This record gives sequence, structure tokens and C-alpha cells, in this order.
Amino acid sequence: MRTEEGGPPAAAVTVRDLEEADLDNGFLEALEALAPVGLTAAQARAVYRARPPDLHTYVAVCRGRVVGTASLLVEPKFIHAGGRVGHVEDVAVSRQAQARGAGTALVRHAVEQARRYGCYKVILESSDALAGFYERLGFRRHSLSLRLDLK
Amino acid sequence: MRTEEGGPPAAAVTVRDLEEADLDNGFLEALEALAPVGLTAAQARAVYRARPPDLHTYVAVCRGRVVGTASLLVEPKFIHAGGRVGHVEDVAVSRQAQARGAGTALVRHAVEQARRYGCYKVILESSDALAGFYERLGFRRHSLSLRLDLK
Repeated sequence: MRTEEGGPPAAAVTVRDLEEADLDNGFLEALEALAPVGLTAAQARAVYRARPPDLHTYVAVCRGRVVGTASLLVEPKFIHAGGRVGHVEDVAVSRQAQARGAGTALVRHAVEQARRYGCYKVILESSDALAGFYERLGFRRHSLSLRLDLK
Repeated sequence: MRTEEGGPPAAAVTVRDLEEADLDNGFLEALEALAPVGLTAAQARAVYRARPPDLHTYVAVCRGRVVGTASLLVEPKFIHAGGRVGHVEDVAVSRQAQARGAGTALVRHAVEQARRYGCYKVILESSDALAGFYERLGFRRHSLSLRLDLK
């Protein structure tokens, strides 16, 4: 457990797989730090249950409550001898928990899991402002991310 | 069918889903224009059969032979009211068929399919040199793509 000089001991952050009960325990609120969610609890459960097996979502837990999340989508390719690529998606930490190391712990965990799944690389999209955060975790600027809005 | 001024009629390019027989009919050679494949036909069949249901691969066919390919990975999210994102991956056209419109036909097809799957956006990674090609198809530069090599 880290302590901050002169303050109380900081609460430990642990990272584990998303569980259905997390949907009512801070998960959706943490995601709101990234983008609007707009799901009822019942709708969120339907999304949870319909997720494909190659999409893994992790949560950061602090004092028994979810304070952040990140997902890893594992894509099998034909190139690179049937290699796999890990896509890190939807990294979000609730505003109250930012600067407690939850984001770092989540991305490190997703990278470890990508390695375990045999991925030859991990890629993610980042704004210019956040790129430094990922560079400190070993990522490097590689190419452009382009988008086309359909809705 | 398009004709080029003064030349013979250009062969038509059609786009459809990848089929197992394509693995022996130009598909792996087309992918080599993007990156080394390094799979035997038997290994490629194993990759083909193990692919997850949310990963769709399309081929461009010219005169009965595969000359290009593109894939669409459909990712369900919690954000945006359980919205879906289409990731366009591994766009490749064999060197002999480049400049025949196969790349454009493949990306347009992937975008149409993403729309059909209900995606609210389509994203892809691009080098600076290729960004203009995607911009002509309606994509815009949005953010950075970062990578971490694991092998």
C-alpha cells in the first residue's frame, strides 16, 4: 500500500475481470468518465451477457467499489503466421479515483493478459494529450487512427 | 464494367465473404502485400476455422481469383448505449491488382457491412501515406494509434 506524505494511507487498487455484479457497483459510472453510457441496469446486463468470448473487460476496484475499467479485444489474424493482436479499448477511471494509479494498473493488466493470449502486439487509440501516459507504459506512436461516423 | 481509354475493358472486381476455398486461390498471396503470412495451407485452414463470429473477412475477386481482402471486427461496447464499433483491419490488394479499384471496393463493402451490423462508427489504423486514400472514402483523421510490441 502506498502512502502519501503527510496524508492517510492510500487505498489499494486491485484489477480483476468484470463480473455481472459490477454493473451495479461503479462500473457504469467509471465508464461515464470516457463517454455517455445511457443504459439501464437491465440493458447493461443484456450487453454483458451478449459479449463475444474474445472481448475481455477488466475493472479496477478500490475499497470494494469499481473505480475504473479497460477492455482487451483479441483479434486472430492470418498475417504473422496466424498471430494475434490485442486491442486495448475503453480505458476509463472515475474522476474521483484519477491520479491513484488505477489507469496504469488497468493498462498493465491488459498488456499482461494480451501476452498470455499470445498477442504479438497491443495497439490502442489515443488523443495527443493522453499519448504521454501510454508512452510511459512502453507504447510508441505508430500510425494514425481514422474514423468514419455512421450515426 | 469500366474501360480504360484506348485499352481493353478492365476486368470487373466483385467483393464477397471469404470462403475456405479462397485460401488456395490468391487470398494468402494478396495478404502478403501487407505483411508476411508464413502459413501452410493446412495452418491457414485452422486459422480460418477458429475465427470468432464477430470477425468478418471479405475478398475482392477478379477473373475468378482473389486479388484483395479486408476484414471487419465488430466490437460491442457499453458506452454509447451499448453501441458497436467496426474495426477495419488488414486491407491488402495484390501488387498486380493495385490501381484497379479493389481497395476502394473492399473498404466501401466493409463500411456497408458495419452499417448493417449497427455500428455507430468505423475506425482503422493508417500510415500517413495511405491516409488520403481513406479520406477520399469519407474517413477523417481522429487520433493517434499507439503500439507495444510483445514479440
